[in-house]
Amino acid sequence: MSQKWTYSFGGGNAEGSAKMRNLLGGKGANLHEMCALGLSVPPGFTITTEVCAHVTATGGDYPDGLNDQVNAAVAKLETAMGAPFGGTKAEGRVLLLSVRSGARASMPGMMDTVLNLGLNDEAVEILAQETGDERFAYDSYRRFIQMFGDVVLGVDHYHFEDLLEDYKLDHALKLDTDLTADDWKALLPSYIEAIEKQTGEPFPQDPRQQLWAAIGAVFKSWTNQRAKTYRKLHDIPESWGTAVNVQTMVFGNMGNDSATGVCFTRNPSTGENLFYGEYLINAQGEDVVAGIRTPQPLSLAEKQAAKIALPSLEETMPELYAELDGVRHTLEQHYKDMQDLEFTIQKGKLWILQTRGGKRTTKAALKIAVDMVEEGLIDHTEAIRRIEPAHLDQLLHPTLDPDAPRDILGQGLPASPGAAFGKLVFTAKEAEAWAERGEAVILARVETSPEDIGGMHVAKGILTTRGGMTSHAAVVARGMGKPCVSGVGDIVVDVKAKTLSALGEVLHEGDLVTIDGSAGQVIKGHVPTVDPELSGDFATLMGWADEVRVLGVRANAETPMDAKVARGFGAEGIGLARTEHMFFDAERIIHMREMILAKDVEVRRAALDKLLPYQRQDFADLLSIMEGLPVTIRLLDPPLHEFLPQSEADIEKVAKALGVTTEAVVRRAKDLHEFNPMLGHRGCRLAITYPEIYEMQTRAIFEAAADLKAVGKDVHPEVMIPLVADRAELTRLKALVVEVADEVLAARGVKLDYHVGTMIELPRAALQAGEIALDAEFFSFGTNDLTQTTYGLSRDDAGSFLQIYREKGVMDYDPFVTLDQAGVGELIKIGTERGRATRPDLKVGICGEHGGDPASVRFCHGVGLDYVSCSPYRVPIARLAAAQAALNVDAENNA
Amino acid sequence: MSQKWTYSFGGGNAEGSAKMRNLLGGKGANLHEMCALGLSVPPGFTITTEVCAHVTATGGDYPDGLNDQVNAAVAKLETAMGAPFGGTKAEGRVLLLSVRSGARASMPGMMDTVLNLGLNDEAVEILAQETGDERFAYDSYRRFIQMFGDVVLGVDHYHFEDLLEDYKLDHALKLDTDLTADDWKALLPSYIEAIEKQTGEPFPQDPRQQLWAAIGAVFKSWTNQRAKTYRKLHDIPESWGTAVNVQTMVFGNMGNDSATGVCFTRNPSTGENLFYGEYLINAQGEDVVAGIRTPQPLSLAEKQAAKIALPSLEETMPELYAELDGVRHTLEQHYKDMQDLEFTIQKGKLWILQTRGGKRTTKAALKIAVDMVEEGLIDHTEAIRRIEPAHLDQLLHPTLDPDAPRDILGQGLPASPGAAFGKLVFTAKEAEAWAERGEAVILARVETSPEDIGGMHVAKGILTTRGGMTSHAAVVARGMGKPCVSGVGDIVVDVKAKTLSALGEVLHEGDLVTIDGSAGQVIKGHVPTVDPELSGDFATLMGWADEVRVLGVRANAETPMDAKVARGFGAEGIGLARTEHMFFDAERIIHMREMILAKDVEVRRAALDKLLPYQRQDFADLLSIMEGLPVTIRLLDPPLHEFLPQSEADIEKVAKALGVTTEAVVRRAKDLHEFNPMLGHRGCRLAITYPEIYEMQTRAIFEAAADLKAVGKDVHPEVMIPLVADRAELTRLKALVVEVADEVLAARGVKLDYHVGTMIELPRAALQAGEIALDAEFFSFGTNDLTQTTYGLSRDDAGSFLQIYREKGVMDYDPFVTLDQAGVGELIKIGTERGRATRPDLKVGICGEHGGDPASVRFCHGVGLDYVSCSPYRVPIARLAAAQAALNVDAENNA
Repeated sequence: MSQKWTYSFGGGNAEGSAKMRNLLGGKGANLHEMCALGLSVPPGFTITTEVCAHVTATGGDYPDGLNDQVNAAVAKLETAMGAPFGGTKAEGRVLLLSVRSGARASMPGMMDTVLNLGLNDEAVEILAQETGDERFAYDSYRRFIQMFGDVVLGVDHYHFEDLLEDYKLDHALKLDTDLTADDWKALLPSYIEAIEKQTGEPFPQDPRQQLWAAIGAVFKSWTNQRAKTYRKLHDIPESWGTAVNVQTMVFGNMGNDSATGVCFTRNPSTGENLFYGEYLINAQGEDVVAGIRTPQPLSLAEKQAAKIALPSLEETMPELYAELDGVRHTLEQHYKDMQDLEFTIQKGKLWILQTRGGKRTTKAALKIAVDMVEEGLIDHTEAIRRIEPAHLDQLLHPTLDPDAPRDILGQGLPASPGAAFGKLVFTAKEAEAWAERGEAVILARVETSPEDIGGMHVAKGILTTRGGMTSHAAVVARGMGKPCVSGVGDIVVDVKAKTLSALGEVLHEGDLVTIDGSAGQVIKGHVPTVDPELSGDFATLMGWADEVRVLGVRANAETPMDAKVARGFGAEGIGLARTEHMFFDAERIIHMREMILAKDVEVRRAALDKLLPYQRQDFADLLSIMEGLPVTIRLLDPPLHEFLPQSEADIEKVAKALGVTTEAVVRRAKDLHEFNPMLGHRGCRLAITYPEIYEMQTRAIFEAAADLKAVGKDVHPEVMIPLVADRAELTRLKALVVEVADEVLAARGVKLDYHVGTMIELPRAALQAGEIALDAEFFSFGTNDLTQTTYGLSRDDAGSFLQIYREKGVMDYDPFVTLDQAGVGELIKIGTERGRATRPDLKVGICGEHGGDPASVRFCHGVGLDYVSCSPYRVPIARLAAAQAALNVDAENNA
Repeated sequence: MSQKWTYSFGGGNAEGSAKMRNLLGGKGANLHEMCALGLSVPPGFTITTEVCAHVTATGGDYPDGLNDQVNAAVAKLETAMGAPFGGTKAEGRVLLLSVRSGARASMPGMMDTVLNLGLNDEAVEILAQETGDERFAYDSYRRFIQMFGDVVLGVDHYHFEDLLEDYKLDHALKLDTDLTADDWKALLPSYIEAIEKQTGEPFPQDPRQQLWAAIGAVFKSWTNQRAKTYRKLHDIPESWGTAVNVQTMVFGNMGNDSATGVCFTRNPSTGENLFYGEYLINAQGEDVVAGIRTPQPLSLAEKQAAKIALPSLEETMPELYAELDGVRHTLEQHYKDMQDLEFTIQKGKLWILQTRGGKRTTKAALKIAVDMVEEGLIDHTEAIRRIEPAHLDQLLHPTLDPDAPRDILGQGLPASPGAAFGKLVFTAKEAEAWAERGEAVILARVETSPEDIGGMHVAKGILTTRGGMTSHAAVVARGMGKPCVSGVGDIVVDVKAKTLSALGEVLHEGDLVTIDGSAGQVIKGHVPTVDPELSGDFATLMGWADEVRVLGVRANAETPMDAKVARGFGAEGIGLARTEHMFFDAERIIHMREMILAKDVEVRRAALDKLLPYQRQDFADLLSIMEGLPVTIRLLDPPLHEFLPQSEADIEKVAKALGVTTEAVVRRAKDLHEFNPMLGHRGCRLAITYPEIYEMQTRAIFEAAADLKAVGKDVHPEVMIPLVADRAELTRLKALVVEVADEVLAARGVKLDYHVGTMIELPRAALQAGEIALDAEFFSFGTNDLTQTTYGLSRDDAGSFLQIYREKGVMDYDPFVTLDQAGVGELIKIGTERGRATRPDLKVGICGEHGGDPASVRFCHGVGLDYVSCSPYRVPIARLAAAQAALNVDAENNA
């Protein structure tokens, strides 16, 4: 006996179930399940995804036995419906079928569907006779020819539409509904001729030929370009394949006792537990979405809430509405989730055509999950599983009004979520000047550098024409929770001319633009934004998440504002305070430059002494805001040249302020120039050369901590040494930190627990972790730099070719967004194991951009890290992802 | 019983032996050994290195039992010599001692020595009486006071010298020899007073007090700054400690029947088997080296060869010479190596004071090793062990005449060995122009870039003011076998002004300079050079090495000249031919730029088509020269911007030549600019983006190979894909290479074995080696880039701070010179293991700069690599190092 390729359902019986999603596809599995539940489902059968795999592998062949099984399944339908496929005049009844795709994961609109299959020149007459509606029958036939022609035979729509238009002109008709049965009858031969003309073959009158052609077309559509692209975007493997569902037709356009509609068991936008949907009387499914007729509301409540005048189904067909509402409750109780339904009413009888988990906004998802827990449908862990962590972003940032029109100038990367509008400026300085005058500005740059921090702080949003998801602009903007669109290649920014050109338009300084950091769009003019509202449901769910998660969540923050936001979002401390960002302030940068230009250690110390009070205040702020929680402070990391002025004017200004020649400034900048600054004189290497820099920073940390401790504050400073490659570096610098710290604490007579640890951000450090842990009290994997060095890939430069890698399928994901588990991940594992072998109580976390990426958080949980640290606005995402990781979430979504 | 701290020797007996070098130090162990051999050695004892360790650990304490053991050993000497230590007038004899340091490894001049110990106001009189030479006795006493004062008590030399000068002025005396016994007697009290005045303590008259003070001083000298620095430079652990040798004094200054000398058992400069040395009659050891009297030749042969008029020892004391010559043969037979001896003749009796392995030139080392094999003293393997591979460099390059004066302008890094002189030029273009006119030029740059290749090729030598041992200039120069000094920080090169400034001097274009690439020196004017001469001994020894080594040795070469040199030096193929160097030729670079500026793939292909014939010729040349051997060709690796013009003038020229605007050139250059080009769009990433580049290169390789094969040549091309991070890259590009190769071979009807493999030069590639080996047929570890990424260290930028790392003791070695075994080495191990687990016959080599570094070669042998590939001039070094690795060389040198 051959393998089972088809599964039948109908009349309360089903060979399949919802659990067989992999074999029957999502749509098919749910049809079987509903049938078994006793719901009124048009009978049919499903051809399995394994057939698709066979077809794809063989280039179009069907497996042995399929033909017989399909024939048997059709025969069963003929028996069930008491109507022969194709029909005969003698019996006066005809079986019509729909043929639809249905993959394991929902791929809406990506693949093909054929309706009314089985009609031909003879069957149409039987249908007319059977229904007593000749117009309906001929309209159905022409719809079938057009759909079959388009989907199965590849004859474009317009061939038929041209014929229809000509006919209407010739007969002075306006709307399709103006055509009578005779009109359609007169038109039909030209449709059939068009098919023969375009394909060179006659239109197939044999229903079985039609059926096989339609099945073939659906399988083929699995590998069309549209579907491929969709799969790539949604990480759906090609190997999954699609099933084909063959089902008896039911009609919502058989008169005023017929209707069709779509509905959600709860409001998909707000999550409210109200039946929500729309329907049309005397219509087919496509009419609801086509937008020619205005769909009517389903329930009275919905009608009243939306102030719609059209009558609801609850009013027009109260009994059928009650039946549908019963179905709604049955399905929710059964699936324990909000469902998205399609139904048709044929001559007073309700048929359910589809059910699936309903798409919803994050706000709705939260409310539904929390409500369902209260209703006893699901438990906390299931509620936690229901929310896609990444989607929380939607809730945490302002968004553009979804109804407002958008005049899009360019598409870039969604570098930092949220939306903002303001007046265009092209330099950080201008941004500050305009902001000073109370103007909202959008800072447009080719790319940003640490020098632009001031301007970025005051801007409402940032756009760059270069750089990727982890470019400077992107990282800093996310840290600030400020929207950013990066790498908008189609837009040209001319900083000198102060213009932004796109699509042939030229915008100038002061022109209004809007950016949508969640969508990566730059839009001309002002698009209104909607502020985020955090519901109680959010807090409730996050509370549940916190109960189950094991992984700690900290934030990367260095300004008081960031730290406050982070604590508000539930961060359990700071995992990374980058001290370099603190030096770009106008009144500090001059001392920083003085330090860099210093001729000897005395002058350098003098300059550092001027920076000390600022740094002490920085650390006092962070330690106060994070009272009771650890604050990991990374000592100076970037190469010194990042702090030097770039433009001639700035160089002159600096030279004047410091009383040196411009040549001296230029010479020092040249001395410090590096070919590959990422691999250059930075991190702890700076402190090996200039120990006095770390000395000053350590002094500032412990003076601040001691002062706070003295007034009873509970502070937990952790000093982190960056870019260690070898234990010797850490040994030396830890000794320096401990000496200064103990000296400060002794001088102030304060006792304080503190820790000294290191970033593990170089492959060598991960390999040498066992040695390094002899000194390090904690590790923090700097996954940004570790990814760069492990891959030999500069995040600032990779944008240009990583795109091509993804297009060509050489790389599936951006390793700067989602942790590369095979490479970087192995180093994290090695580093953690070796470190803990030396020091079992070693605290280990990560503090790269990956700390806020759910897949990466899952990995960190799996490896047994103690915490992740991410930008403040990603803290809730990390908390939820950590909880899901603890629950060992099934990766498959309930799509 | 306490531990044994002292070991006695004398009178044909010895408690120690040469095998006890670790315990007795080198000098001590050899004294015991010679004693046991029956040679005439002044009796004495050795205090072990364990005592030193105890002293260092306790901060100056001696271990229990030492005191008694020293007393007993001294008593033994008193008995042996029949003279009491310190002496008594009654007996008329006095025992005088020397106290000398002697560590496990030779540290000449680093630690302290005290002679004539035991003299005091009474003993000096006994000595006068005993020797019948009052002048000798008082001269010995004042020498002792001065030496003891200086070494043990810290009273500077000049105090005594001032006293002596004053005395001479007062008494109208000129030379020390003019002073009589009475003069010395008269001076002595002032010496003793000076000691009391400087130290606040009287000069110790008690011989035992003198002895303990001297022993303490020697142990203390182990940790003086000089010794510490020496140990750091020579990788000698502090824990080794020094021994102290206490020995009875013998005197070469007791009249004309006394003498002292140093000698080598063979000529240390040429290796000739002739007794070689110098001596002085009636002198102490220090007189031989002090240079006041001219030492005389030892043998008649030596005297005649050097045309010296002074009488040889063979002539003045023929019997003693014969005895010494016997000692020479005894020691060579015993130690089976050339020895460096010290001897003293006291009143007609020969005493041997020291023997050790003699330092020698590499030329001498080769000759001695080969001769000793012929003499049956040692076997092949011992001969191989005797040569330090790195020293072969001396033989392979021209060197500066060692006798010529040097007017040094600056000291940089010895980036590429050899010496050259020529006229200063400051740009590659000028270098080519001057060379065209037949001028020898030295190219001086701040740093070089691939654009300079043409100029580097024609220059006699290269100097840069920036960059390290593996900067572009250094690597390319070594590849060319051309001398180079890099990173000469003290010299300022102003390319615009065409000047080189150093030490206040300004040199201009055309001025003569000499560079010593082996010493890292830049010298003003012309210093004559000496050409290398490769002796038959070299070939003989290398032949023996090849017989024992397992590791293959290939060369990194891309020009016919390099390839010929490499084959001449015994390379077994090319391990790395960098194709990018081939594109800088004037007639090619324009097509390369055309390719880079191409607007679309057709234009790009057209430009590549023009490059194809050149590339085909390049490969034909290499494959021909390396007939019968594999040639690994790395496809294009550097980022494209390296090929674009830099200066405005060049940009204009290129724009004109290609018929585009200068703006277009500038724009493209800007587009291609990268922040971290090392981590950017290069290597296989170029070919994922522009597959047509690798297509052209592959076509060129296989057209060349097929043409050669067709005329009967045995060619073995290997195509290497650089910078792979993930298997997917290699899968795609291997498919491309195989497709083009097979198409070319099919079209030409030629059958040819070829291999496709990859560089492993990113940490991720090493970790993913198991996957990558599914496609790769060979691995070549690119240890330069692997070191950069594993350490996160740019070799172009590291020069500035790695120097400080080494000075501060944070890093012991330059990881770009010697492979970092702990980090990079682990990745090589992992990569090799994983690769071979997938593909057991995977061929694995390395092709970084480390391929020519002996320690790294040893590591590669240990890991089981198949071959190393290094620059042509390092091939002999690698061959020898590989042979030694196979012999599992004891790391300790016979110092």
